[in-house]
Parts: sequence; structure tokens; C-alpha cells
Amino acid sequence: MIEKEILVIGGGPSAMVAAGGCRMFYPNKSVSVIKKDADSMVPCGIPYVFGIMLDSVEDDMIPCGDMAAKMGTELIHDKALKIDGKAKIVTCESGETYSYEKLIIATGSTPKVPKKIKNYDVKGVYQVPKSPDYIRKMHKALTNTKRVVVVGTGFIGVEIADELQSAGKKVTLIGPRILKSSFDKEVSSYMEEIVKKNGVRLLKGERTTEILTKKGVATGVKLQSGTELKADAVILATGYAPNIDLAKESDVNIGEFGAIRVDEYMRTNIEDIFAVGDCAEKRDFITRRVSPVMLASTATAEARVAAANLFSINLVKSFKGTIGIFSTVMNNQAFGSAGVTETQAKKEGIEYIATVIKVAGKHPASLPNTQEQAIKLIATKKGGVVIGAQLVGGLDAGEMINMLGSIIEGGYTIFDLVGLQVATHPLLTSAPTTYPVMQAAQMLVAQYFKK
Amino acid sequence: MIEKEILVIGGGPSAMVAAGGCRMFYPNKSVSVIKKDADSMVPCGIPYVFGIMLDSVEDDMIPCGDMAAKMGTELIHDKALKIDGKAKIVTCESGETYSYEKLIIATGSTPKVPKKIKNYDVKGVYQVPKSPDYIRKMHKALTNTKRVVVVGTGFIGVEIADELQSAGKKVTLIGPRILKSSFDKEVSSYMEEIVKKNGVRLLKGERTTEILTKKGVATGVKLQSGTELKADAVILATGYAPNIDLAKESDVNIGEFGAIRVDEYMRTNIEDIFAVGDCAEKRDFITRRVSPVMLASTATAEARVAAANLFSINLVKSFKGTIGIFSTVMNNQAFGSAGVTETQAKKEGIEYIATVIKVAGKHPASLPNTQEQAIKLIATKKGGVVIGAQLVGGLDAGEMINMLGSIIEGGYTIFDLVGLQVATHPLLTSAPTTYPVMQAAQMLVAQYFKK
Repeated sequence: MIEKEILVIGGGPSAMVAAGGCRMFYPNKSVSVIKKDADSMVPCGIPYVFGIMLDSVEDDMIPCGDMAAKMGTELIHDKALKIDGKAKIVTCESGETYSYEKLIIATGSTPKVPKKIKNYDVKGVYQVPKSPDYIRKMHKALTNTKRVVVVGTGFIGVEIADELQSAGKKVTLIGPRILKSSFDKEVSSYMEEIVKKNGVRLLKGERTTEILTKKGVATGVKLQSGTELKADAVILATGYAPNIDLAKESDVNIGEFGAIRVDEYMRTNIEDIFAVGDCAEKRDFITRRVSPVMLASTATAEARVAAANLFSINLVKSFKGTIGIFSTVMNNQAFGSAGVTETQAKKEGIEYIATVIKVAGKHPASLPNTQEQAIKLIATKKGGVVIGAQLVGGLDAGEMINMLGSIIEGGYTIFDLVGLQVATHPLLTSAPTTYPVMQAAQMLVAQYFKK
Repeated sequence: MIEKEILVIGGGPSAMVAAGGCRMFYPNKSVSVIKKDADSMVPCGIPYVFGIMLDSVEDDMIPCGDMAAKMGTELIHDKALKIDGKAKIVTCESGETYSYEKLIIATGSTPKVPKKIKNYDVKGVYQVPKSPDYIRKMHKALTNTKRVVVVGTGFIGVEIADELQSAGKKVTLIGPRILKSSFDKEVSSYMEEIVKKNGVRLLKGERTTEILTKKGVATGVKLQSGTELKADAVILATGYAPNIDLAKESDVNIGEFGAIRVDEYMRTNIEDIFAVGDCAEKRDFITRRVSPVMLASTATAEARVAAANLFSINLVKSFKGTIGIFSTVMNNQAFGSAGVTETQAKKEGIEYIATVIKVAGKHPASLPNTQEQAIKLIATKKGGVVIGAQLVGGLDAGEMINMLGSIIEGGYTIFDLVGLQVATHPLLTSAPTTYPVMQAAQMLVAQYFKK
């Protein structure tokens, strides 16, 4: 048995950030990371290796070795199989065992097995795991294909479909309305127009029931409506599930939705064992329900909290729950969403008010490359607490949604936002007279004046 | 005498926003705006009419007539000369008088008279007022010049110098280090390199003492060091002063630094008279001293607060003081600053901690057009309250500084920021593992762990 101090299991963003955070906070403690592969992929970059943005799979790697060396952490290339929480020992695939003082589980997530689709596992059908080897093989195989069917209209499905189409394939995208968990219908409709304009064939509201095959190789898909589509390859982007194999082998408690149960400090039920990232359970900031959000940004936020509270409670978790906060790009336009959508608010029985405002993203609007900016702001009806925002604009909307995330996390109300102070500049933002965050807040506040 | 209900005096952004806010909050009240010119200029767009970004002065106009029509406010083209606060009557240049229920003064600012510079008012010397007629004439006159000297290294001076140089002039820029009130020395130095690379001759630390003339026309400038520079035109961008002529004629109290004294609700000493924007006194959010900040964004924030509290106190002002929050662009890089700089913190005797971090603005960094992002974060040493941030990056840094402004205004500490939740996307932001706001906070928090 090899004695370790801080042990991290996993190789994705949250594992790296947890390890780096521990090195920063506890420079006198050694930190070791157990991970199978030499390198890891930048998870949200994966769709872009299939398009024209990145030249190869190798361009989308997290250089774990370099990072570990820089941070002063040790990398152990092995697979953790079992944790003995009483003896505080981890057993690996190689047979080696490691003791720990503090252990952080960051085993991430893997694609859900789409059991409802017949023949989901035949040749020519791909999922989108975060494994470099898998993605390398998939990338190579897709090079020689023409017709690709992508099943799933979440972020990964939509981004991959759009990228493959841009790279010259004939892509059909199948699923419910685009990004329906993160955006309301009017934004989805707008995105759908963009994707279709790029040439993607969108079959909205259709459900895939079967992979058609010939000699055990995928030749197309069959839909619930009976329609059959030919395809040289099928990509199933039908969501991810927490990777909890290790936890199950180790008496670490799992929540009802299949993720490791953790408290506000990312502690599991077993003393000195923490869990962070996609494998750890999240609770929604607003609705207080278990949240299905799996995002590298959320995962790294949890990793920072775990690192800070590893030996004693130091930082009360600033976020009392997980904010679904997303951004993506289609046709040079950025889309962002933070907090709850109107659809979610209705479903959860939140009494809300909402408004939409559109402005020019630069000022004066006569400046070159001025793009329209549209914002939707959602607040509780009583009290006016900001609970959700959606944003469409130029590429700067990617940072603007983070401003709105900070506003939600900070507990701002629409009454606070009326007088919010921002910087405006002709070439960078909308006009001070129209800046949409304050404008939208003012429109909502005006409703209270009428009563 | 003509009877009015809500009367706004002024034509800039804060006047327009005050008028619009009043229409929104009090739809049963009429709103009238007294302003001299038909249209107003977008103030921060003025430098860009001299370069290659805007085709003409007309491209930088606020269409006040259209805006007023849209908002349902009346425009009165006249100049207000005197307010009788007891009788609640405004007398105008035309001789017409108007009564009011509530009055908002938004008379803005005009260039400071640079009395210390000899011959400052000869032909060929320009200042940068927000008057359309003046800027039109100045723009025309500059067309036929080659050598231009710009005096002043604040935003207007730097932006005009850079734009004129880009438009083919030979520009010399004279003043202290660039943007020294808003950025620390390391950022200024970096900006100075960019401006020089664009071809601007920068005479840093020099002071202009005299305009050289021939037959009453400017031919150059003389510096304190004795150096003489030839010029076809000289632009004095040496700051602005509140426009308080009307207030002085009207027993409205003026503060020690020459702006109209107002309280947290933008009320002056006279019942039913409010003041907003550059003509109104500001107090710094952090230092609690009178703040010299004159920004359209700040002005419009005040206008929104005044409108909401015009008839009764409705919205406690969310900002307990003015945050200096700025952004600008040089050579396709954006710069932002919010709150106090390190220089100011030192000067004001604030016990602070600060750190700088540099990351790639997209992830993976192999993506096309990836620019470096650098952030400087400043917090109080005890308590860790975030009091300042400076940012260099791609054009999205313009919205990112607004995120940091919301963080400062919301009272966030570095301990809160460690776990801040943001959206990250390969094409839009830095990586979740390195997002610089949390990284910088974590580096500062780590200092507390060492004790």
C-alpha cells in the first residue's frame, strides 16, 4: 500500500480543478490524481472537432500531464475500483492500493444507454463519451461518411449536427424542440431557423425507435411515425448519466436520480470522502429539486468549494444550489440562459413575471457589425427576485449571460436592477439609454406602479 | 405660462432615459423635455466620427425626435434660463414660461476651460463638446489637416488620437500615463504600446503650456520642457465640468466640486426638483468621496432612479454610490475597469490584496481568434470584499467588466467568488478550469489559508 495525503479520482475538469485548488490552499499536502487515460478531452469542445473550428481531436485535449506538473500534483495512471471508507484505502485495477487522508471522487458522467432504441449498439452508431480513444476512432470513421443522423436536440446533439453540416455532411437532426431545457419556445424557434438555414434537416417532435441495419451495420433509423431515413452513421446524443460504478462498490450513498449524494460542502455520507462534478448530485438554486445539469463550469465550481472545505469548513458555499447557466453559438450568434425558463417556472408553479426586450448590441447602431441583442428576464411576481434570463446576441453574449448569472446568484431583484451600473462603449455594448438588463427590469417594475 | 406635469431639462442620455422612465412608470402624466438642439450626439461615440468606424457625424446622433414620439413625450426646443423653485416655474430663452409638478435637471457637462494653456481659444484649437453643430464644423475642419496634436490622455483624448491616426493623420498625444484614473500602471503601459504601434507619437509626462500661433491661428504647441511641436490642429481633451449655469440662477445648491448636490434619490435641496447625470454630484461607492466620474451609463442609472422615486420613495437606490465602470477598445482588444484601482486604493488608505491572472479567452486555446484575457482583482484585506477589477481581453471583455461591476455592486466577497457559477463555452469564454474571475479569487483566498 502506498500512502497518499489528498487523493482525487477522475481526470476531467473538476478533478483537475480540485487537485489544483488543494495545492493552492494546502501547499504542504501532497495531491495525487488517479486517472486511466494520459490526457483528457475538453468536454464542451468535442462537437468542434467534427467541424471546421478545430483541425484534429488532438487540438481538444486537456494536457493533464503538463497541468499536473505545473500544479505540483502527481498523476497515477490507473483505474480506481473500490474504496474502503473505514480503512481509508483505494484499490485500483492494477492491484495497487493507496491510502488517503481526504478523497475527492470526480468520476464524471458517461452517455446514457439508450435502451429504448432498438439496435442502439450496432456498428456505425456512435455516442459521445469524453474518451479520447473513442472520439479519435469516431472522428476517423465519420470522415468517410456523407449522410449522418443525429438523435438528440440538447447542446451536444445540436452542436455536433451543426458542425458536421458545416463540414460538408448531409445531417438530419431528430428530437424535441432545440435546447428545450435551457430556453423557451421563442428562442428555440429562432435557433431552429438558424440550424435549418445552415442546411441541417430538422425533424422536430419525432422519436427514434430503431436503428436499421444490414449485416449488423447501421444503414439508417426508423422513427415512431414509421418514417425510415438512410444514414452512413448515426450519432446518439441522448444525454449522460453520472458515473457511479466506483461509488456503488464503496458504500457511498446514491440519490434517487442516480448521482452521489452530497451536502453543501460536497461531502458524501462517508467521512473524508467528497464528490464533485457530474457524478455528484445537484439541487436547483430556484426550484430546490434535484437538478439534471451536467456542465464543466458547474463541476469546477463544486471542485473549488470542495477544495476549500476539505480539512475544515472554511467557505460557506456561496451558491445555495445549482444555477443552470449555459451558452452556445450558432451562425456567429451567441445564446445564453441562466436560471429557470418560463416553461420551468410554469411547471414548478412559480408565480412569475417576464418580459422580452430587443436592442442594438452596439451604439450607434450604424457601427459596422452591429448585431441585435434580445434579452428575456424572469422574476418572481412577489418580491421581484430575478430567477431567470435568456439572451441572444453577438459573441459577447457569452460573457453577458455570466453577468446575469452573477445577478441571479447574488439575489438581485428587478428593483435593484433598475439602477444597475454598467460600462457602455460604442464598440462593445448597447447604448446606456437602452442597455437591456436595466430596460427589461424597468419594464417589469413599471407593472408594480400600475397597481 | 404653459402648464406642464413632468418637466425634464436637457437633451443627453440621462434626460432621454428620465423622460422615458417617467412615461413608463406614470402613464397618466405628461412628460415634456426642454432642449435646445433638435438632435443630440451619442456622447461616447464622438471619437469614432473622426476615424474609420463611422461615416459621418450624422451616424452618431440620438434621434431625440423619434425617441420622444415613441415614448410619448413632448420636445420643446428652447433653452431653460431660470427656475423659480417656489412658484415652480421655468423661464426659457424664448421668453416662454412653463410650470411643473416635478422637474428633472439633466443639463450635462461641457469641456473645462483649460485656462492654464496660453492661447487655448485661438482658431485651430478644438475641444470636444457634445454639440452636433460644433462637432460637424470640427469634423469638416480636421478633414484638411495632417498633423494633429491631442492634449489629454483620458478616454476621449486617447480614443480620438487613435482614431485620427487610423484615419491617416500624424497624431501626437500629450498627457500623463494613459487612462490613469481608471487603470493601474501595468495596464496603461500595455495600452501605450498599442497606441504607439498604431503610429501615434506619445509624449508621456509632458505638459502643454501654450498654443503657438501665427496671425491668430494655431500652428503648434509648446510644452513645459520647452519642446515645440508643429500642428495643423490642436485638440484639447482636458476633461469636462458639470453644466450648472441654470442651477446657479435658481438657488439649487452646488457641492464643493461644482456639481449639483443631490441625495440618494437624486433630489436637490429644492422640493420637487431632481438632478441627474453629469451635472449632478456623485459619491464613490467605495471611497465615499465626491467622484469625478462622468459617464453616460452612470447618468442613465441615475435617471432611472430619479424617475422611479419622483412622486414618492419607491425604490431604495440600489447603488450606495457611484462605481467608476469603464470600457474601451484599442487595436481589437477591449479594456475594462470597475471600482477602485490599486493606485486609488493606496491613495485612499484602503488595506487591500490584489492579484493578476492571464488565461486564454477561448478553450481549447487552439481555436481560431483566441485572445489572451488578463484580469486584476482587488479586494479589502479584511473581509475580502471585492472593490476593484481591471480586464484586458477580446471584445467580449466589454460585457465581462459588467459582470465584475455587478459583483462589486452586489457586495460579493472573494470567498463568494471561489464558487461562482458561470457558463463556459469553447467559442465564447475561457475554460471552466481557468475562468479568471474564480481563479483570481481562489488565488487571493489561498493567502488566508497560509495564516
